[in-house]
Amino acid sequence: MADYSVDHHLSDDESNIHRSFDNSIDPVLTVERGDVVRFECRDAVDGQLDLESTAADVTEVSFDPVHPLTGPVAVEGAEPGDVLQVDLLDLQHKGWGYNVFMPGEMGLGLLPEEFPDPGIHVWDLEGDVGHFVNGIEVPLDPFPGVIGVAPEEDGAHDTLPPYDTGGNMDVKHLTEGSTLYLPVKNEGALFSTGDCHAAQGDGEVCVTGIESEMFVTAQFDVRTDMEIEQPQFETDGPFTPTGADERMYGTTGIDSDLMEATKKAVRHMIDHLHEERGLTRGEAYILCSAIVDLKINEVVDAPNWTVSAYLPESIFPE
Amino acid sequence: MADYSVDHHLSDDESNIHRSFDNSIDPVLTVERGDVVRFECRDAVDGQLDLESTAADVTEVSFDPVHPLTGPVAVEGAEPGDVLQVDLLDLQHKGWGYNVFMPGEMGLGLLPEEFPDPGIHVWDLEGDVGHFVNGIEVPLDPFPGVIGVAPEEDGAHDTLPPYDTGGNMDVKHLTEGSTLYLPVKNEGALFSTGDCHAAQGDGEVCVTGIESEMFVTAQFDVRTDMEIEQPQFETDGPFTPTGADERMYGTTGIDSDLMEATKKAVRHMIDHLHEERGLTRGEAYILCSAIVDLKINEVVDAPNWTVSAYLPESIFPE
Repeated sequence: MADYSVDHHLSDDESNIHRSFDNSIDPVLTVERGDVVRFECRDAVDGQLDLESTAADVTEVSFDPVHPLTGPVAVEGAEPGDVLQVDLLDLQHKGWGYNVFMPGEMGLGLLPEEFPDPGIHVWDLEGDVGHFVNGIEVPLDPFPGVIGVAPEEDGAHDTLPPYDTGGNMDVKHLTEGSTLYLPVKNEGALFSTGDCHAAQGDGEVCVTGIESEMFVTAQFDVRTDMEIEQPQFETDGPFTPTGADERMYGTTGIDSDLMEATKKAVRHMIDHLHEERGLTRGEAYILCSAIVDLKINEVVDAPNWTVSAYLPESIFPE
Repeated sequence: MADYSVDHHLSDDESNIHRSFDNSIDPVLTVERGDVVRFECRDAVDGQLDLESTAADVTEVSFDPVHPLTGPVAVEGAEPGDVLQVDLLDLQHKGWGYNVFMPGEMGLGLLPEEFPDPGIHVWDLEGDVGHFVNGIEVPLDPFPGVIGVAPEEDGAHDTLPPYDTGGNMDVKHLTEGSTLYLPVKNEGALFSTGDCHAAQGDGEVCVTGIESEMFVTAQFDVRTDMEIEQPQFETDGPFTPTGADERMYGTTGIDSDLMEATKKAVRHMIDHLHEERGLTRGEAYILCSAIVDLKINEVVDAPNWTVSAYLPESIFPE
């Protein structure tokens, strides 16, 4: 990585945590342009799950503490209309993580009607590899699921949806070495991050990536030469799990509704993983969320659109 | 490529061309399992455009001959309920191609309301490279836009939308070396292909890839051990334009409607290409359709979804 030194450390102490995007929350730190901050980030459900958690524990999870975010950090000189440049210098997980899906009645995830009962996989994370069932190994490319600045509109904004100012975008390519641009709506920008994932498929279909406590090290700058409506970014990927082209198994979803096409692609991939790879349907749903990528193949061949799900075959043992 | 010899040649003579998916069209060729067929394919608008065509010519294009497909080919032994396996052995363009977008009133493409007037770029294709404006070079990864078998339902089916049996799926990863699986609905499967693209971005947003006359060489087999509802495939990609991770510029589209999120991501990318790279908006729309990939970042952070557009920066001259 680039040569840098950390100017400020922000621990995950309760005093540095907040749970909504709100431009009235006082910054816990004010930094100058060019400063490097190392954020300690809690996991998405704020410590309610641990290494020994089971599916039964998932039903007990409260969403009141979701998402605990570290910050906000004010950047001197950032004014409404500017762009906050965030260079992601380093991302470091803490050796474990989890995927969960919730009881279907909660309506979370892409296919709640097909998964009435909750599920969980707790991951051992060793360096760049996460261990799943049946000897399946998943490459890790950590990134912050939630990363953004305070919205323009006053009041508390739920951290679940992303906004024009970023937040829970779940852009898996915001890996180490990436640069994110965020539209500034308040003096000082008021930046926060959290909900980190050690890996995730494009789509995050079961509603979780590999949720992990993490350190996020970022450098800040203010751009007055850009004008953007929603976040933009630069990234080197990786764009496949290993950063190289490799054999993928693809399932198409073809439908006149883009969301339904997406659901079909994922349903077909779950069928494939269950029938050809011997996973339970719950395991397959989790694996899709952790490693299977969704691509929009076409949105112009009216009235039917094509979305496909892509499974990297190198994750399976020989 | 793998060692193979062509068993059958199908030229693009009118006698081998048809213009709808229809299970009543007699096969022009019947092959055995394992046979290799080399299909000569016409371009999407069947010769109405050429190397010297201009935007004015685009307004004169008739859609009656769209899409000319080569086939159908019957595969002996393929029965309804089986799966047709199509191994794509070779794809060879004929040295030129075009992208067009149509007058907005026709409602074609992702953003017709923003492009009331038509546009065209005629591409010189040299081996693996296509030449755009301003010294921009686009890597070529040819594939058939339309590839499929006859639908179950009797009657003529328009070739524009894809169906459960494939067709105009525009899956750009169906490159040389890929294998496609198609659900068989009629005796002999009745396979056709055409509408080939020398390159395309995921999404095909302006309604065309780099439309090219092409040779498609494919080997056929019948699988009785698979059961699929819609097409599935295996591919080595490439998953980036060069087949390696490279710097991408990303623009997010965040919205409560997945199609609108897609439109926003593309609008933001067109703005970026216009403002930062000096392209006209029409050139930017075409470049998005030829080389920019759409990915679904998340479809679970209700009520807002994230779609991003990814531009490979290596296509620009130093």
